[in-house]
Amino acid sequence: MNISLRAQSMPESPIRKLAKYADAAKRAGVHVYHLNIGQPDIATPPQAIEAVKNFNQDILSYSPSQGLKSLRTKMVSYYADYGIDLSPDEIIITSGGSEAIMFAYMSCLNPGDEIIVTDPSYANYMAFAISCGAVVKSVKTKIEDGFKLPPVEEFEKQITEKTRAILICNPNNPTGYLYTKQEMRQIRDLVKKYKLYLISDEVYREFIYTKSPYISACHLEGIEENVILVDSVSKRYSECGIRIGALITKNKAVREAVMKFCQARLSPPLFGQVVAEASLSTPEEYMLEVYDEYLTRRNFLIDKLNQIPGVFAPAPTGAFYVMVQLPVDDVERFCKWCLTDFSYPIKEADSDETHPATVMMAPGTGFYTDPEDGRHQVRMAYVLNKTDLANAMIVLRKALEAYAEISKQG
Amino acid sequence: MNISLRAQSMPESPIRKLAKYADAAKRAGVHVYHLNIGQPDIATPPQAIEAVKNFNQDILSYSPSQGLKSLRTKMVSYYADYGIDLSPDEIIITSGGSEAIMFAYMSCLNPGDEIIVTDPSYANYMAFAISCGAVVKSVKTKIEDGFKLPPVEEFEKQITEKTRAILICNPNNPTGYLYTKQEMRQIRDLVKKYKLYLISDEVYREFIYTKSPYISACHLEGIEENVILVDSVSKRYSECGIRIGALITKNKAVREAVMKFCQARLSPPLFGQVVAEASLSTPEEYMLEVYDEYLTRRNFLIDKLNQIPGVFAPAPTGAFYVMVQLPVDDVERFCKWCLTDFSYPIKEADSDETHPATVMMAPGTGFYTDPEDGRHQVRMAYVLNKTDLANAMIVLRKALEAYAEISKQG
Repeated sequence: MNISLRAQSMPESPIRKLAKYADAAKRAGVHVYHLNIGQPDIATPPQAIEAVKNFNQDILSYSPSQGLKSLRTKMVSYYADYGIDLSPDEIIITSGGSEAIMFAYMSCLNPGDEIIVTDPSYANYMAFAISCGAVVKSVKTKIEDGFKLPPVEEFEKQITEKTRAILICNPNNPTGYLYTKQEMRQIRDLVKKYKLYLISDEVYREFIYTKSPYISACHLEGIEENVILVDSVSKRYSECGIRIGALITKNKAVREAVMKFCQARLSPPLFGQVVAEASLSTPEEYMLEVYDEYLTRRNFLIDKLNQIPGVFAPAPTGAFYVMVQLPVDDVERFCKWCLTDFSYPIKEADSDETHPATVMMAPGTGFYTDPEDGRHQVRMAYVLNKTDLANAMIVLRKALEAYAEISKQG
Repeated sequence: MNISLRAQSMPESPIRKLAKYADAAKRAGVHVYHLNIGQPDIATPPQAIEAVKNFNQDILSYSPSQGLKSLRTKMVSYYADYGIDLSPDEIIITSGGSEAIMFAYMSCLNPGDEIIVTDPSYANYMAFAISCGAVVKSVKTKIEDGFKLPPVEEFEKQITEKTRAILICNPNNPTGYLYTKQEMRQIRDLVKKYKLYLISDEVYREFIYTKSPYISACHLEGIEENVILVDSVSKRYSECGIRIGALITKNKAVREAVMKFCQARLSPPLFGQVVAEASLSTPEEYMLEVYDEYLTRRNFLIDKLNQIPGVFAPAPTGAFYVMVQLPVDDVERFCKWCLTDFSYPIKEADSDETHPATVMMAPGTGFYTDPEDGRHQVRMAYVLNKTDLANAMIVLRKALEAYAEISKQG
C-alpha cells in the first residue's frame, strides 16, 4: 500500500509550510498582515449574491456538463466587449480556472510530453503537470528586466520533439507583467512554427494599470486552432469561493476531448454558475471602483517598497501581485522568522494603543522551477486596504532592519 | 497538435449517444420518460436551499482546501449514527463523489497499476482510471445471481503484482445490490491478504429496502488503514447540482497525498458546502418520506417489469437503480429505436386526450468492461413518480411487442 509517485512528487508549497507559524503567531496575539494570498478583500458584487437568494427551483439538480447555456450565452457578450468572437458552444464551464488547466493538460498532453512555462509562474501549473505526468520546461524571466519575455531563442532552446504546448499567464501571476503586442506576436510565431498548443490564462484582464493594450491569445491571427483560453470569475468579481472558470477554444477536437473529462465529473457547481451569470451584469461603477482601488494600492505599495533600502520591486502592469527582491539570505527563512520571531507595535486606528503585528509573504522559491532562482524574492498580493498596506510596509521595513542586525551578529 | 491518448481512450457512453435522439423525439412532440439517469425528481430539503438564502457574508472567498470545518464537524455526527467513528480531520470535502474517486486514484495508483471493480459498474470508475493511467480489471457479477459477489477465487484470479486496490459501490449502482456481511468479510480478507486499498463508494446507504444490515467498509475490522470511503450528498438529499462529496480515510499518508491534489484545485464549492451542512439537519420525516417513496416505486417497478414476457429484473436491495434483462437482440439498437421509431399514446391526467410517449433507458453495454456482457440489459433509475413509472411500463411493454414484431419480419 504505497502512495503514488505522482503524489510523492507534488511539491509542498513554501506558503503552506508557513501556515502553521502564522496560526501560532495569531494565537500569541500578533496581528498578521496577509500579503501572501490572492484572496481579494473586495466585496463581491451584491447582485451576484442576491441572485442566489432569488434562486427558485425545488430541486438542486445536475447542470449540463458543459455548464448552463444561459451562462455561456452571456459570456459570449462579455468576450465580445474584449474583441473576442465566440459562440456558446466554444465555452466550457469548469470548476474554477484550476479545472480548466487540468482538463487542457489531460486533453492535450501524454505522459512525458513537455510544456513550456515562463519562470517564475503560478505554482499549480507545475502541480497539475505532475498530476498528468507531463514535464514542465521553463524559460526564465528576470526581475531586473521587469519580467519581460526573453528573446525567442530562449524558447527555442527549450523546444524538443516532446514539446506540445506553451502556457502563459497574462497579466501574469506572480509578476504582474502584461505581455506586449510584440511579445504576443513572438509567442504566436513560435506556436505556429512548432505546431504547439497555446494555453493562455487571462483571469486578470480587468486589472491593467497602464495604457498598454490587452492582447489576448484569442486576438492572435493564424493560431485560432492552437489557442486554449483559461478563464475564471474568481478574481474579477471577488468570488474565488464559487469555483467557476472556463476553458475556451475554437478547436473542436480539443473541446470534444475536454468534454469527455467534463462528463466524467458530471457537472460544474450549480450555485456558482448562478452567481457567475449574475456577476456578468455587474454595473460599470463597481468595476471602476475596484480598478481604482487596486491602482491606488499598487502605486502606494510599489512606492513604499522601493523606498526600503535594498528592496527592489518592478512596477507591475497588471493583476494584483508584485514580485519583490529582498536583501535577505533566504526568503523562506526570513518569511518564517517574521512569523515566529518578529513583531512590531502598530498603532491602532482611533486610539493611542498599539498591537504587535507582523507580515506573511509568499516565498519566491515556490514560483520557480528551480527554487534557487527565487531565494531572494517574495510575492506580495495587494489585497489589503491602504491602511493595512501602510502598516504592513512599516512592519516589513522594521523586520528587514532587525533581520539584518541579527544576520550581522549571526 | 494531437489529442492525448487518454482522451482518445475515454469511451463515449451509450447514454450520451442517445441524447440527440431523445432531443429529436421531444422536438417532434413525443414525451420521453427518462429512466436513464440518476437525477432524483424528489425536492431538495427546503431548509437546505434556505441556508443559501440566509448566507450573510460580503465576500465569496476561498474555503479551506479540505472543506469547511463546520461541515466536517457535522459530518462526524452523521457517520456516528451509522457506527462509523471519525474525526473532522479524517474527512476531506470534494467536488462531488467524482472528485473523491479521482483523487483516491491519483494518490494511490501509478500509471499501469491495476484496480479491481465488480462488473457491471458505474461507467465513470473506468473513465477516471483512464484519466490516471490505471488499469481496470473486473470480476463479473451476474444478473441471474441477482449480482451477488462471485467466490473469492474469482477475485484472486484477477490479482497480480500490479493490483493496488479493490473498488466497490455499496449499495450498488447500477445493480442496486447490497453486499452481505459475508461478502464484506470476503472483501476484507482479500484486502488484508494482498495489502490492497479498498475504495468504497457508499453514497446510497440511506436507500436499503430490506432488513439487511448496511455493512460499511469502515465497519470492517483490521483494515482501517486500507479503506478509502467515497461519499456524496447528491442522491441522499436530491442535490446533485451542488457538487459536494467527501473522501474519508483513517490513513494519514493517503490523506496527506489527497490534500496535495486538493490544494492544487484550491477549494471545494462554497455554496455547495453551505447547502450540504444545512442538509445534515434534514428532519427525519423528510428522509422517511423519501425512503417510502423509493420503496413504493421499487416494488411497483420490479413487479411490472417481471410481468412483461421475456423481461427479468432481480429485485434491488438498495439504491434506486435496477438492471433489467430485455428480450432484444441489442439494447443499444433497441434503446435508440424507442426514441427514433416508436411512441405509444398515453392518456393525459384529468383528460380524455392522449399524447405520444416513449422511454429512454441506459444501455447495459455502458456498465460492463466488456460491452458484450450488457448487450441484453438496460439500467433503469426509478426517479419518476408512480404515475409516470406506470406509463413508462405501458410504453416499454408495447415497445417490446412492436420491436419483436419488426425483428420477426426483419
